Amino acid sequence: MSDIVTFGETMLRLSPPGNERLESATELEVRVGGAESNVAIAASRLGATAAWLSKVPESPLGRRVVSELRSYGIEADVVWSRHGRQGTYYLENAGEPRGSNVVYDRENSAVSTAKAQEFDIERIQNARVFFTTGITPALSTTLRETTANMLKAARQGGTTTAFDFNYRRKLWSPEEARETLTQLFPGIDVLVIAARDARTVLGIEGDPRQLAHRLGSQFDFTTVVVTRGSEGAVGWHDSVVHEQGAYETDTVSPVGTGDAFTGAFLARRLDGDDVPTALEYAAAMAALKRTIPGDAALVTRDELEAVVAEDGQQISR
Amino acid sequence: MSDIVTFGETMLRLSPPGNERLESATELEVRVGGAESNVAIAASRLGATAAWLSKVPESPLGRRVVSELRSYGIEADVVWSRHGRQGTYYLENAGEPRGSNVVYDRENSAVSTAKAQEFDIERIQNARVFFTTGITPALSTTLRETTANMLKAARQGGTTTAFDFNYRRKLWSPEEARETLTQLFPGIDVLVIAARDARTVLGIEGDPRQLAHRLGSQFDFTTVVVTRGSEGAVGWHDSVVHEQGAYETDTVSPVGTGDAFTGAFLARRLDGDDVPTALEYAAAMAALKRTIPGDAALVTRDELEAVVAEDGQQISR
Amino acid sequence: MSDIVTFGETMLRLSPPGNERLESATELEVRVGGAESNVAIAASRLGATAAWLSKVPESPLGRRVVSELRSYGIEADVVWSRHGRQGTYYLENAGEPRGSNVVYDRENSAVSTAKAQEFDIERIQNARVFFTTGITPALSTTLRETTANMLKAARQGGTTTAFDFNYRRKLWSPEEARETLTQLFPGIDVLVIAARDARTVLGIEGDPRQLAHRLGSQFDFTTVVVTRGSEGAVGWHDSVVHEQGAYETDTVSPVGTGDAFTGAFLARRLDGDDVPTALEYAAAMAALKRTIPGDAALVTRDELEAVVAEDGQQISR
Amino acid sequence: MSDIVTFGETMLRLSPPGNERLESATELEVRVGGAESNVAIAASRLGATAAWLSKVPESPLGRRVVSELRSYGIEADVVWSRHGRQGTYYLENAGEPRGSNVVYDRENSAVSTAKAQEFDIERIQNARVFFTTGITPALSTTLRETTANMLKAARQGGTTTAFDFNYRRKLWSPEEARETLTQLFPGIDVLVIAARDARTVLGIEGDPRQLAHRLGSQFDFTTVVVTRGSEGAVGWHDSVVHEQGAYETDTVSPVGTGDAFTGAFLARRLDGDDVPTALEYAAAMAALKRTIPGDAALVTRDELEAVVAEDGQQISR
Amino acid sequence: MSDIVTFGETMLRLSPPGNERLESATELEVRVGGAESNVAIAASRLGATAAWLSKVPESPLGRRVVSELRSYGIEADVVWSRHGRQGTYYLENAGEPRGSNVVYDRENSAVSTAKAQEFDIERIQNARVFFTTGITPALSTTLRETTANMLKAARQGGTTTAFDFNYRRKLWSPEEARETLTQLFPGIDVLVIAARDARTVLGIEGDPRQLAHRLGSQFDFTTVVVTRGSEGAVGWHDSVVHEQGAYETDTVSPVGTGDAFTGAFLARRLDGDDVPTALEYAAAMAALKRTIPGDAALVTRDELEAVVAEDGQQISR
Amino acid sequence: MSDIVTFGETMLRLSPPGNERLESATELEVRVGGAESNVAIAASRLGATAAWLSKVPESPLGRRVVSELRSYGIEADVVWSRHGRQGTYYLENAGEPRGSNVVYDRENSAVSTAKAQEFDIERIQNARVFFTTGITPALSTTLRETTANMLKAARQGGTTTAFDFNYRRKLWSPEEARETLTQLFPGIDVLVIAARDARTVLGIEGDPRQLAHRLGSQFDFTTVVVTRGSEGAVGWHDSVVHEQGAYETDTVSPVGTGDAFTGAFLARRLDGDDVPTALEYAAAMAALKRTIPGDAALVTRDELEAVVAEDGQQISR
Ligand SMILES: [Ca+2]
Ligand SMILES: [Ca+2]
Ligand SMILES: [Ca+2]
Ligand SMILES: [Ca+2]
Ligand SMILES: [Ca+2]
Ligand SMILES: [Ca+2]
Ligand SMILES: [Ca+2]
Ligand SMILES: [Ca+2]
Ligand SMILES: [Ca+2]
Ligand SMILES: [Ca+2]
Ligand SMILES: [Ca+2]
Ligand SMILES: [Ca+2]
Ligand code: NI
Ligand code: NI
Ligand code: NI
Ligand code: NI
Ligand code: NI
Ligand code: NI
Ligand code: NI
Ligand code: NI
Ligand code: NI
Ligand code: NI
Ligand code: NI
Ligand code: NI
Ligand code: NI
Ligand code: NI
Ligand code: NI
Ligand code: NI
Ligand code: NI
Ligand code: NI
Repeated sequence: MSDIVTFGETMLRLSPPGNERLESATELEVRVGGAESNVAIAASRLGATAAWLSKVPESPLGRRVVSELRSYGIEADVVWSRHGRQGTYYLENAGEPRGSNVVYDRENSAVSTAKAQEFDIERIQNARVFFTTGITPALSTTLRETTANMLKAARQGGTTTAFDFNYRRKLWSPEEARETLTQLFPGIDVLVIAARDARTVLGIEGDPRQLAHRLGSQFDFTTVVVTRGSEGAVGWHDSVVHEQGAYETDTVSPVGTGDAFTGAFLARRLDGDDVPTALEYAAAMAALKRTIPGDAALVTRDELEAVVAEDGQQISR
Repeated sequence: MSDIVTFGETMLRLSPPGNERLESATELEVRVGGAESNVAIAASRLGATAAWLSKVPESPLGRRVVSELRSYGIEADVVWSRHGRQGTYYLENAGEPRGSNVVYDRENSAVSTAKAQEFDIERIQNARVFFTTGITPALSTTLRETTANMLKAARQGGTTTAFDFNYRRKLWSPEEARETLTQLFPGIDVLVIAARDARTVLGIEGDPRQLAHRLGSQFDFTTVVVTRGSEGAVGWHDSVVHEQGAYETDTVSPVGTGDAFTGAFLARRLDGDDVPTALEYAAAMAALKRTIPGDAALVTRDELEAVVAEDGQQISR
Repeated sequence: MSDIVTFGETMLRLSPPGNERLESATELEVRVGGAESNVAIAASRLGATAAWLSKVPESPLGRRVVSELRSYGIEADVVWSRHGRQGTYYLENAGEPRGSNVVYDRENSAVSTAKAQEFDIERIQNARVFFTTGITPALSTTLRETTANMLKAARQGGTTTAFDFNYRRKLWSPEEARETLTQLFPGIDVLVIAARDARTVLGIEGDPRQLAHRLGSQFDFTTVVVTRGSEGAVGWHDSVVHEQGAYETDTVSPVGTGDAFTGAFLARRLDGDDVPTALEYAAAMAALKRTIPGDAALVTRDELEAVVAEDGQQISR
Repeated sequence: MSDIVTFGETMLRLSPPGNERLESATELEVRVGGAESNVAIAASRLGATAAWLSKVPESPLGRRVVSELRSYGIEADVVWSRHGRQGTYYLENAGEPRGSNVVYDRENSAVSTAKAQEFDIERIQNARVFFTTGITPALSTTLRETTANMLKAARQGGTTTAFDFNYRRKLWSPEEARETLTQLFPGIDVLVIAARDARTVLGIEGDPRQLAHRLGSQFDFTTVVVTRGSEGAVGWHDSVVHEQGAYETDTVSPVGTGDAFTGAFLARRLDGDDVPTALEYAAAMAALKRTIPGDAALVTRDELEAVVAEDGQQISR
Repeated sequence: MSDIVTFGETMLRLSPPGNERLESATELEVRVGGAESNVAIAASRLGATAAWLSKVPESPLGRRVVSELRSYGIEADVVWSRHGRQGTYYLENAGEPRGSNVVYDRENSAVSTAKAQEFDIERIQNARVFFTTGITPALSTTLRETTANMLKAARQGGTTTAFDFNYRRKLWSPEEARETLTQLFPGIDVLVIAARDARTVLGIEGDPRQLAHRLGSQFDFTTVVVTRGSEGAVGWHDSVVHEQGAYETDTVSPVGTGDAFTGAFLARRLDGDDVPTALEYAAAMAALKRTIPGDAALVTRDELEAVVAEDGQQISR
Repeated sequence: MSDIVTFGETMLRLSPPGNERLESATELEVRVGGAESNVAIAASRLGATAAWLSKVPESPLGRRVVSELRSYGIEADVVWSRHGRQGTYYLENAGEPRGSNVVYDRENSAVSTAKAQEFDIERIQNARVFFTTGITPALSTTLRETTANMLKAARQGGTTTAFDFNYRRKLWSPEEARETLTQLFPGIDVLVIAARDARTVLGIEGDPRQLAHRLGSQFDFTTVVVTRGSEGAVGWHDSVVHEQGAYETDTVSPVGTGDAFTGAFLARRLDGDDVPTALEYAAAMAALKRTIPGDAALVTRDELEAVVAEDGQQISR
């Protein structure tokens, strides 16, 4: 039995070293990444047992993805498929004004054909939390249905459902996203959403405190976390709003920051933290993640405690 | 005006360093490769002006492919497409008994939607040779029609047509290949085919000399070259069969050997060589190619002459 | 419940790229390796569920070892220790006459203090096979006792015990090894031993068939496998001796060949193969392993079947 | 017919990874760079057809230079020479207070013997702009004459002449530079010059606006651009002075910034922009170039437009 | 005869590229580092002849250490040992809030058994300065005695003794350090100590000026330098206190900064500089070192002079 | 006082990884190599104290060369020059039929201006052996005189003179070489020469035994060694001819094989070996060198003894 079960696509992530351009690269670093497995990894680093459900091609590329996720100590409970591709994405890291850029190459991936009945639904129903994101239903019509079915099953099994809104403009339009995702809201207990998405996709107005409050009241969530990047986050729970600032950090890799935040928040909540404490650990986790190349938040609990305790700055030797 | 115009798909080629497995690779070397552009490169190294026609996505990956091909001095005359993927393939180099392995990830590529009318057909009609391979019509129904139309246009323009049979079992069945490709045969002047394909796809029997003779007589080609890997090749022309042995070589990368052979054969024929002389240079080119990483035969004419003159073995200093 | 549970040390393996010398290396490739986990990995590749028990330091280096083993899909069930080092070894790959060389740096490792009672002995008793090697008791006096206790527990639980003799002259003298290891023999069902070790450590004489027969009769094993490197292996079982030749192979990395052989032999025996069939798959696994960098036999069942079916030699595309 | 034809030396550029010192480097990254080809590349990225004329050794090093330039889509129209070296430079990237350092190894290069009559002068006369820099005449007495002859031919052909002053103290003294370059001024339409060079080499005084004005009036240029590094640039045209600020940028590689600026300025002027608009795009191009390793400004028009439109900062996904 | 003779351990230093984590690294960069040899290198760069005494294992790892130190032009006068390990350390470079981290793996190193009589003590007695640090006696009881004996011998030979306090909390407790090191103080002429160590280990109070004054008066040193990281340093000599600020620097590698400072201070004092001048050069050396990967301060005298003369900021070409 | 003092040029050696072509390389491995320093290194590995005299530019490239040579434990006693380049060479490693290729870029190097009086001639006169090669006088007229003067000084000081003929066709014609080098012969005691050079440059005829005999008699050498690559060598001494076969070897890098042979031969002769014994060790050294990347024979005496004792083939662990 896992504390957290996640469902979604994990892609092969191919990036040129340093700030090289894809157009002229002669080598690519290979890693893997996906919002749901990133969350599972972050939660697992803080002591939760975490699993990731997905459908991957029976190929060296599919095995590559599963192998790396297993190395992080999470359980990869996958359906091996003879059809469908391994989704990939190309990441170009760059400073401003160029900015990092993602090139998706994920159409027709194996996971886009995944149906709820292909999975052992009891795994979800026996977990304490089931987690997925707004990326999953953006991938295919089949996955919209699968996501809805899994959330329904979780609710039936008494499992808390958590959801990161995660709007991706390269996958669908704001209108499609709003229509699809708000239909899933009734089945969701904990919503994480960027302030920007709340405004531009859902059309809600106000400062982050107001956004959290309005979302929580309007859609009957138990908990809403509104994230604001380098300006911190706001948590709404039991009709109370809590603010959390962001820790300063020397960013090496911004990809996966939000997932580290969410994974830590969920793991700490499972451990019994109240919302403001969980938000503080989540913010520290996010700051540490940004110092680490790749999507995964390879942080230790000691490191996390040290940041929260404001213990820093020297070479430790 | 180019001496040789080729048409086909060039893929991004991703391979782990050395003999690493894809399943555990943390870095991939990036190159590009495709039978038709490989042939254009080889011909160009021997002094022919060569062009490659294709359709590639308007993306960093499409630009990567075009950029590398341009670096080899061939003209990349491409239709930039907002739709369709950049085809990729993953290559694992390995010795026996594992053997090298190719994982294709090339479905729904931009080129699979290419129609003859998207290209400047006069480029083909003004060339001395038009070249494509059996891979191109294997990629999509659209491309079957496009290939036929281009061969037809070439014939109309008085351009010699050359074709490498190149059966790929990961793309289609022998039956599909036979049916499609034999329909193209009437439009082809020069056929290059592996003895193995002649037997298992076309169902022709006999030793290589007989295969060449039977193909030449049956389908009315002007020239037939039957290749036999490390056992050399056989050329049929004007009803005469010529045998050519293979040069010994320290193989670093076998991919692209046949394309180097064909590119050199065509370039030397354009230069006025008779068939046996062109076969000798083609065999030398193939041997040199195998000492070079990647698909492209980055050979100089001096090196080629030295091999044919059997001048070898010392460090040149 | 695992099919196979193994116990032993897995080291961090540091090797210069290519054939560089350690003395002048500026980069080291990092992998992990240990006879027992190598065997677990090989067995797991053929479908067995496999676990590895050990004691590792609570440090980035200990986590590095566990992380890579997990990536191979085996269960790493370790005692995390605040004391003791992570054992390391440096491997210099070289051709003849230099030859590859291993520099051990494994003294005072965490595992050398491991006692049987620190582990969940039921894991061993619920497995179908328990496996360790002659390296484990060579590491410390504590481990001699631990090895004996684990073999005893396995026997009590009805678990088949398998043991690779694996004499390492950099760890102890032939006399010490003989005395210690023959005391363990009564608790062992399946012995794997190199012909060379049988002769120079145990002082048994004869050709490999005789060695297998004499070992089997003298010490009451159920199965004895005598390995002979590039000359194949001999299996003794039910008083019958079976010979198995070695497959030809392009060696990239010889380290771990014997472990691949043993892991495959055990997995196939668990699957119901008779001894000669299991030996054939073991020999094929060993040949494939040698084409793969690192200690781990990252082979698929399809690849293994292809070798046994003598299907080879072409680029698969 | 090219929009822009440039003439000058492009060197092999060898630099240790990261901030390593040449003194202890064990690997060097290989790129190519030269002011004139850098300008051609930048112009080409914005849609201009661009060519680079030079003389390079018939050797793998000469081919290396031509190959990379071709990959950027510019035409490399070179005289292949059996005499003379391939110029190289070693670049050590470093932060302050060490600072980056260039070690030139470019004496007796093939290009230093290049005479105007070796080139197809009609290429220059059919172009819209001919461009070279103050580095070219600094390389040899022969090149001083060649530069003068080419500028003269361009003027005769009605081609606009553009010139970057580019004083290099490792190549010649301020006195030599002043004497040589001011003799070329009458043949130049568009001058680009660093404020520092205007002051220390030409001895002109005043703020950048005054420098631009004085240069323009005194030497009868049609356009003068005075560059000021991180403080922007000033353009003088039709007796009017325009100021342009610099965009903030996360610098990865400063080499080639000025060339990116100049190439963009010329390309936008060719496209019909007035001077202040061309300066704005030039400044944006310069900022983007600094985020890219190497000399070449591998920027897309979309990226450039996004910077000018102040669209920034997020990971694009 | 050397100007400076140092004694201590130099470790193999293994670090993942960039900001990778050890836990997931697949490659490690290999360098060597140790406080005493770092000081010898820094002094040598400024023209002093410098030697390093130590005891290293007769193994590829021991040779690796000696080889790199020799490459820096210092004399490595070592006792080759058949017993004892080569000490290693793993360095993870990271920004805040993670921070860089050192994992020591240096127990039972060959040097920990080194006795004074194994060395040619006349080398120390003929030198102008003998230098070691508080790390050396922290490594073993034997080394405590050896350190004391060497300091005694130096004093007897009229050699100036210099000592960097260098408290390492991963090696011993503050109490042990204080007791051991204050016993060595009577034999020391020049003490370098971090303000933090003076406070937390020695229990001295006050601002840096007071710390320097109190240490100098209390223990009868001729010179005391109190270092304050990015806030500079304070020197006490002849009862006068001198303050020196730190130069701004783009830090690439902080390890070895203090050693660069101390080596430069000693070399400049040997060259006749007074204390404030030597401190200025020491501060400049420290700033330059931080721009250089690895422990060694590979700085030239020209570069050092340029920093002191505030000559900076441009690419030098 | 050194056992062996050598004089000559050591170049920076730049080579693409693996079998990449220079024409398309994006990285180069940096090493250093030169016949005379290669010989010094090989001799030093066998216990001789060895020095290398040369003139190198005061630049990061000159320091790079000296630094690496120092790392091998030889004394680099160089004149630092403000004029002249650092000689470089580019090495492309390739198998047959391509073959490895060297591109020299060594004209106008600092060493080409070296005069005997710039060096401390007593160093040569106090050595037991002075060694240089036919490459040195091929580099400049100045060096022809310098070589003659150094040989003369050595003879006057009673130092044995050893000389490797080393004809390089990329540096001079056979006629020039013959004329210049035979004039040096009267000052040479020990000559090493390839059979091929004896025939094609000196015009001597016969089998290797005859070549050695004729050279020894005709020019009054005390010892002549005629090398024959993979067919071994022949030594002539005291009018007796000794034959030595070559050891089989897995070649990784052939460059420097002859230098390893010569360095070992000289070192063993200095140690008292008779000619046939020294030839045997020289042949073993040459075989070991070929397993090691780079020019330097980084071999240990233990490894050499093991080869001579025919102890081989297993992984040593
Ligand atoms: Ca990254
Ligand atoms: Ca910290
Ligand atoms: Ca490569
Ligand atoms: Ca050759
Ligand atoms: Ca290996
Ligand atoms: Ca195969
Ligand atoms: Ca690179
Ligand atoms: Ca942006
Ligand atoms: Ca690697
Ligand atoms: Ca490095
Ligand atoms: Ca500076
Ligand atoms: Ca050996
Ligand atoms: Ni690389
Ligand atoms: Ni990232
Ligand atoms: Ni990375
Ligand atoms: Ni590798
Ligand atoms: Ni790498
Ligand atoms: Ni290949
Ligand atoms: Ni390759
Ligand atoms: Ni490398
Ligand atoms: Ni291995
Ligand atoms: Ni390897
Ligand atoms: Ni590297
Ligand atoms: Ni740069
Ligand atoms: Ni770079
Ligand atoms: Ni760069
Ligand atoms: Ni560092
Ligand atoms: Ni570093
Ligand atoms: Ni080599
Ligand atoms: Ni190499």
